[in-house]
Amino acid sequence: MTDSTCVVRDLAQRGRVASRRLALLTRAEKDAALLALADALDAATEDVVAANGEDLARGREGGIAPGLLDRLTLDADRIAAVAQALRDVAALPDPVGEVVRGSTLANGLQIRQVRVPMGVVGMIYEARPNVTVDAAGLGLKSGNAMILRGGSAAASTNRALVTALRSALDGHGLPQDAVQLLEGDHDAVKALMTARGLVDLLIPRGGAGLIRAVVTESTVPVIETGVGNCHVYVDAAADRAKALAITLNAKTHRPSVCNAAESLLVHAGIAATFLPAALADLAAAGVTLHGDERVVALAPEGVEVRPATDEDHDCEYLAMEMSVAVVDDVDGAMEHVRRHGSGHTEAIVTEDRAAARRWTAEVDAAAVLVNASTRFTDGGQFGFGAEIGISTQKLHARGPMALPELTTTKWVVEGDGQVRG
Amino acid sequence: MTDSTCVVRDLAQRGRVASRRLALLTRAEKDAALLALADALDAATEDVVAANGEDLARGREGGIAPGLLDRLTLDADRIAAVAQALRDVAALPDPVGEVVRGSTLANGLQIRQVRVPMGVVGMIYEARPNVTVDAAGLGLKSGNAMILRGGSAAASTNRALVTALRSALDGHGLPQDAVQLLEGDHDAVKALMTARGLVDLLIPRGGAGLIRAVVTESTVPVIETGVGNCHVYVDAAADRAKALAITLNAKTHRPSVCNAAESLLVHAGIAATFLPAALADLAAAGVTLHGDERVVALAPEGVEVRPATDEDHDCEYLAMEMSVAVVDDVDGAMEHVRRHGSGHTEAIVTEDRAAARRWTAEVDAAAVLVNASTRFTDGGQFGFGAEIGISTQKLHARGPMALPELTTTKWVVEGDGQVRG
Repeated sequence: MTDSTCVVRDLAQRGRVASRRLALLTRAEKDAALLALADALDAATEDVVAANGEDLARGREGGIAPGLLDRLTLDADRIAAVAQALRDVAALPDPVGEVVRGSTLANGLQIRQVRVPMGVVGMIYEARPNVTVDAAGLGLKSGNAMILRGGSAAASTNRALVTALRSALDGHGLPQDAVQLLEGDHDAVKALMTARGLVDLLIPRGGAGLIRAVVTESTVPVIETGVGNCHVYVDAAADRAKALAITLNAKTHRPSVCNAAESLLVHAGIAATFLPAALADLAAAGVTLHGDERVVALAPEGVEVRPATDEDHDCEYLAMEMSVAVVDDVDGAMEHVRRHGSGHTEAIVTEDRAAARRWTAEVDAAAVLVNASTRFTDGGQFGFGAEIGISTQKLHARGPMALPELTTTKWVVEGDGQVRG
Repeated sequence: MTDSTCVVRDLAQRGRVASRRLALLTRAEKDAALLALADALDAATEDVVAANGEDLARGREGGIAPGLLDRLTLDADRIAAVAQALRDVAALPDPVGEVVRGSTLANGLQIRQVRVPMGVVGMIYEARPNVTVDAAGLGLKSGNAMILRGGSAAASTNRALVTALRSALDGHGLPQDAVQLLEGDHDAVKALMTARGLVDLLIPRGGAGLIRAVVTESTVPVIETGVGNCHVYVDAAADRAKALAITLNAKTHRPSVCNAAESLLVHAGIAATFLPAALADLAAAGVTLHGDERVVALAPEGVEVRPATDEDHDCEYLAMEMSVAVVDDVDGAMEHVRRHGSGHTEAIVTEDRAAARRWTAEVDAAAVLVNASTRFTDGGQFGFGAEIGISTQKLHARGPMALPELTTTKWVVEGDGQVRG
């Protein structure tokens, strides 16, 4: 075994021991602990800000991008917000113990399928320290021991956060190893990804490259999250005002996140009346446009539309940039989505029942929307109260993942001596 | 790309096209097709028996074990039984379209989570031709296109079965590629396991070696099935008659399957009164026994108990063989299960509420049983009407997997122009 393998084995075994306690906690015990963690974070604000300052200084020296620096930053206000997020998790229902289904069999056996924690859950994510706290909170509420691996640019901040959380767990009589940080180089991550049997679930959260690496290299079960090449399709029967508002909102409301739209598809029958205004509005909002020939031909005076390549249609820009195409009909739009979509969120704008019905039935994605912005595919928006990521795979969880998705089930079978004949 | 990669890519793309039709079929259409498949199998009995004869002849020449030969055999009666199984699947509810949950958000968005087919599902299994028909039927009912890879010892039989099924699909106006057979050597299997993005789910079904290989080598999402090192724990407060009946049934009713018990644990407080009779009964039934020291000491005259090693406690015998241990208490039993169990089915025999409660809460397995034989962990017994395998993993499905476990969900969101503020 390499050193990293030993480190991960040790973390996983400690996590396993902790998970046995966590699995038996009542909701009241978990909620009280979550409130204690929140208070501990508030109390640790000064330490966390100082540690974050070290990360920021190293980041600036290393010349990381301003957007990443912003995500890395934790000031007193942001720490108060992540502490509040823990209190919000305390207010959510406990998924553990929920009876999913059950029955009494003909032979008198009483069977029920009950939600239970996964056990030991790993998370691999980028330099966003708020994820450290969110994951710890959701893990605790769902009864799982978490092994957290955040981006190395946030190493000092994560260490300060996890120190505060672990000490609060201990002070509350709960196992500190409910939350553990995995440090070390890529070997450590590799060891985590291959800790089959020791780690029950691994959730990568971040850019496409990170997720692809985790999915490909892992032997531990993985839930793929977050790559979103989302489309807005404006149908011939679209209401123009709704279509304009939805397109603008989906693209520009928060372009850096996975549920932002990256591509606009317009039915040929409405292109001449819809596209000039849409292109002008998008350009005025600062969106760089890449269009196919029919789009370029409809660009109004002064609006630049660059020729779109296949790469543009495949691209998750995560920026103020959008590809635009004219399609002949709803079949053309669905074919485009099949070729270029990532199975995240696909929206149609239409007043035509038949087109809407076909879209929701035939488009294969985590979320299919009618007359709504792609930005609504979000655990908070869906009313889950929290989100650990948005799954774009079909196994276990699809779409926004919250507390129930961090659980598995077991069958409890109670009899009175039954045997099979 | 290797030839095998091309073959799998081609199968997967044909499957994908077929899956789009399958996803839109109504229950009535699918049920009518299942009945047609059943009739076609009945009509093809002569061809299938002839093809099976070739496989059996090759098998005998190659000297395969009698148990495997028996599993490989399809005579007219068995073909009638698998055809009937298709009719039984037709009678089951359609999981597709089920609304799992839904709500209307504060902004008026109507959201619902709806069951939809996975898409393209691969199955890798051993030389058991009945699995070919079962998988085709469950796949069709759940709207999935199936790529089937059976053991090469059943190649001729599988070819005859799939030919009959495909021709019936075609005659019924449905895409033949709903059921495809993957032939070729191990490269073909490897290509299937790494067809990420082309195949939505892979289900290995067979022995521990097959499952380990698929789980380790796959980049496609996998559901691990079937390894069962199941325990019966006879508590101090057990009813002796129930304990004897359950132990015998769990071990001897059908020892070759995953829900058979492989290990008997007995509380020290009841060992002297329970074990002599239990060992005698098991030995009389033809079970080879491996016991720890305290067990050997309690073996009655004439009953041979060999010394048990750690390997015995780890072993899924799948035969008339059992390891036996005396434990000090329920904690000792749970510790033994943690060390040696495979997370399949763990039974306690007790009249003590507290012990039963601890067992069901603390033992981490797909099924935890009180006063019932381990043999009940089975899709048919649970009332699911069919079973594609028994999952021992925690992701997506745990325990007996039937039609709902062959589906995923999508979120359908319907609005009237909503955007995020």
